[in-house]
Amino acid sequence: MSDGGAAGRMLLTGIGELVTNDPSPDREAGPLGIVRDGAVLVEDGRIAWVGSATHADARVAERRERRTEREDRRDGDEHRSLWDAEVEVVDAGGRAVIPGFVDSHSHLVFGGDRAAEFAARMAGQRYEAGGIRSTVAATRAASDDELRARLAGFVAELHAQGTTTFEIKSGYGLSVADEARLVRLAREVTDEVTFLGAHVVPFEFRDDPAFGGDADRAAEAYVDLVVGEMLDACAPHSRWVDAFCERGAFTAEQSRRVLEAGAAAGLGVRVHGNQLGEGPGVQLAVELGAASVDHCTYLSDADVAALATSDTVATLLPGVEFSTRQPYPDARRLIEAGVTVALASDCNPGSSFTSSLPFCIAVAVRDMGMTPAEALWASTAGGAAALRRTDVGAIRPGMRADLVELAAPSHVHLAYRPGVPLIGRVWKDGAVTA
Amino acid sequence: MSDGGAAGRMLLTGIGELVTNDPSPDREAGPLGIVRDGAVLVEDGRIAWVGSATHADARVAERRERRTEREDRRDGDEHRSLWDAEVEVVDAGGRAVIPGFVDSHSHLVFGGDRAAEFAARMAGQRYEAGGIRSTVAATRAASDDELRARLAGFVAELHAQGTTTFEIKSGYGLSVADEARLVRLAREVTDEVTFLGAHVVPFEFRDDPAFGGDADRAAEAYVDLVVGEMLDACAPHSRWVDAFCERGAFTAEQSRRVLEAGAAAGLGVRVHGNQLGEGPGVQLAVELGAASVDHCTYLSDADVAALATSDTVATLLPGVEFSTRQPYPDARRLIEAGVTVALASDCNPGSSFTSSLPFCIAVAVRDMGMTPAEALWASTAGGAAALRRTDVGAIRPGMRADLVELAAPSHVHLAYRPGVPLIGRVWKDGAVTA
Repeated sequence: MSDGGAAGRMLLTGIGELVTNDPSPDREAGPLGIVRDGAVLVEDGRIAWVGSATHADARVAERRERRTEREDRRDGDEHRSLWDAEVEVVDAGGRAVIPGFVDSHSHLVFGGDRAAEFAARMAGQRYEAGGIRSTVAATRAASDDELRARLAGFVAELHAQGTTTFEIKSGYGLSVADEARLVRLAREVTDEVTFLGAHVVPFEFRDDPAFGGDADRAAEAYVDLVVGEMLDACAPHSRWVDAFCERGAFTAEQSRRVLEAGAAAGLGVRVHGNQLGEGPGVQLAVELGAASVDHCTYLSDADVAALATSDTVATLLPGVEFSTRQPYPDARRLIEAGVTVALASDCNPGSSFTSSLPFCIAVAVRDMGMTPAEALWASTAGGAAALRRTDVGAIRPGMRADLVELAAPSHVHLAYRPGVPLIGRVWKDGAVTA
Repeated sequence: MSDGGAAGRMLLTGIGELVTNDPSPDREAGPLGIVRDGAVLVEDGRIAWVGSATHADARVAERRERRTEREDRRDGDEHRSLWDAEVEVVDAGGRAVIPGFVDSHSHLVFGGDRAAEFAARMAGQRYEAGGIRSTVAATRAASDDELRARLAGFVAELHAQGTTTFEIKSGYGLSVADEARLVRLAREVTDEVTFLGAHVVPFEFRDDPAFGGDADRAAEAYVDLVVGEMLDACAPHSRWVDAFCERGAFTAEQSRRVLEAGAAAGLGVRVHGNQLGEGPGVQLAVELGAASVDHCTYLSDADVAALATSDTVATLLPGVEFSTRQPYPDARRLIEAGVTVALASDCNPGSSFTSSLPFCIAVAVRDMGMTPAEALWASTAGGAAALRRTDVGAIRPGMRADLVELAAPSHVHLAYRPGVPLIGRVWKDGAVTA
């Protein structure tokens, strides 16, 4: 991944509602720092200036007039550094512009899909064939180029839906060679790669007669592999380590071993926890200073209190509850307690095959007690906080020029018009990407 | 609206899963009549042939070979009428192809929007300003060209989401001149125009001191207008008459007056009923032989039994319950009873501002007990039944070539991947429209 952006300068103006996520006294109240009739000046892929369209348009017009009057003369204009150079002017036509979405939780390197399992679950039938086991088998069987082609399709899909920063986890390889392959392939398309060897205990360990059907012994043996050879192979391609701390996956102590080993190898910590019931995931995440604990569907009062006094973001994943008919997490309770909340897709073929953050916003507003403004903040600035990124998630001078134009006059329409494709032009690092 | 379609011939082949809605013994079991590895031949905007891609590709190849060998000679090939002419071959690359969606219930001619009301409702606040009254005021204030531009935007949005046939209701004019204007403008973009003067009693009647605050007298006086001068002005531009038979809107007797007057003027009957509670709407619809009764959220056993023995379709509108946090209608109960079920968007600025039938399918599968196949059938063939159309809603020789290619291998993905824009190329009457 390159750090570079589009060269040159662009003024995006005529923005009916500009969501900056940068509240200040001269802006509308609320977390979004809204500027009405706004403009954004982009220079070499970064935000150079944010303010009123009227002001920006006047500066551009003045400069053009000066150029006409005294073609090649320099002048001492005080705004020279900002406004005295060529700029491509792009008109948003009164539409809303928001920061690019930051999807801090996805599992996009895999083979196959599980449409038949989904249809059976929706029909209330038990579905015996496969589950995650079938995705692991299909992923292992797929060639690098097959996985790469699939991934390229998902990246295009993300961009088209306004997601300009995204995390990808491994976790469908579950062998040293396959996990290393997945983080390497993920690294080709994003800086935010998470090593999730501790996704589930693979069947070759569970079924190994050496463990005599003792699931805990099998898990311990697999964790030995994860914290040893597998971590060594994956850490060079990863920024994060993650563990699925849940009944049926890994215990608190097993998760702690994985996360501490990852941290010792220089990786940041994130945790899957409290998805299927209350459990130790949240407390472990806070104790280890994790950037984020994801799911948070079942929380005790002590969990909420621990999150509220920590730097750990609670990342909620509405697509999972939508696709599995589970109860939704209570975002309102977390927000009222002062917890930082992110929304992410958890895009994966088993429990949430959506990659649409607008869809997640609509569900979070209907069913999780968020306002449209809170849900938009959570899927942009919240996602950036969950990835400890200070260069994305807001529209502020110095940040990356990741901008999304909506086919709507207001961000409220993302929840008000569920399912409607409202994403217009998308700029990543100042360059049009969708 | 013209009846014409694209001239010429197209073979759409390489279809991984072709949903025909035309079950027959040689196809997969279920309502969708699925052909694996299918092909569709389109001629002058109509379906000419449906079958296997292997067969079609071989016929096209044979014909090309013959053309090469004996350039301008005619031959007596038995397939000559079907296969012995130039055809443009289009490859679906293994993707799924479905019939264009038929949205049998929308309210797309209006001014303004109600985003602030929506945000307040989602925040649990009462919102005093306006409701439908504000939409009526904005609609009356808008010029023809403003409404036309808005409508053109919605039509483009519908096509981009795979909807190739759609109904539009009036009902935000509520005066003779304004209702006539709305049906006339709707008629410019669709054949399926519904006169819904009986949407709500307008405030100039409700507030008229002549009725001394007697809501029923005000409603009676308004119905006199609807069945008289308003119907005369609107019927020439409409195919259907509709009434909102619900507590707070129109009684069964008032609705009956409107619907019978419409029928006498040559219009087909449709009814809004049983949205907010049990009521007489369904029974009235069945008694009058309505094509459809829409909402059906609260139904008695007698309502279900009446629908099951009638030709009246039950049209369910998941966007309404999603956007108002009401309980969802029970599609399973209706299907088990043998009722024909349609899904439609009810796209309107107050209670359901989605125009996405893929979104409605996803919600119907999660929350209304439908399988992905039933939900797709309901939003294509079901919508056609609700509009009593025999030329759309299925892919069968003689029908309009309204085809949607999905960016997915199966129709199941419409529910499995909620919110993801899965609509690829769209053909209406054989011509690419999105």
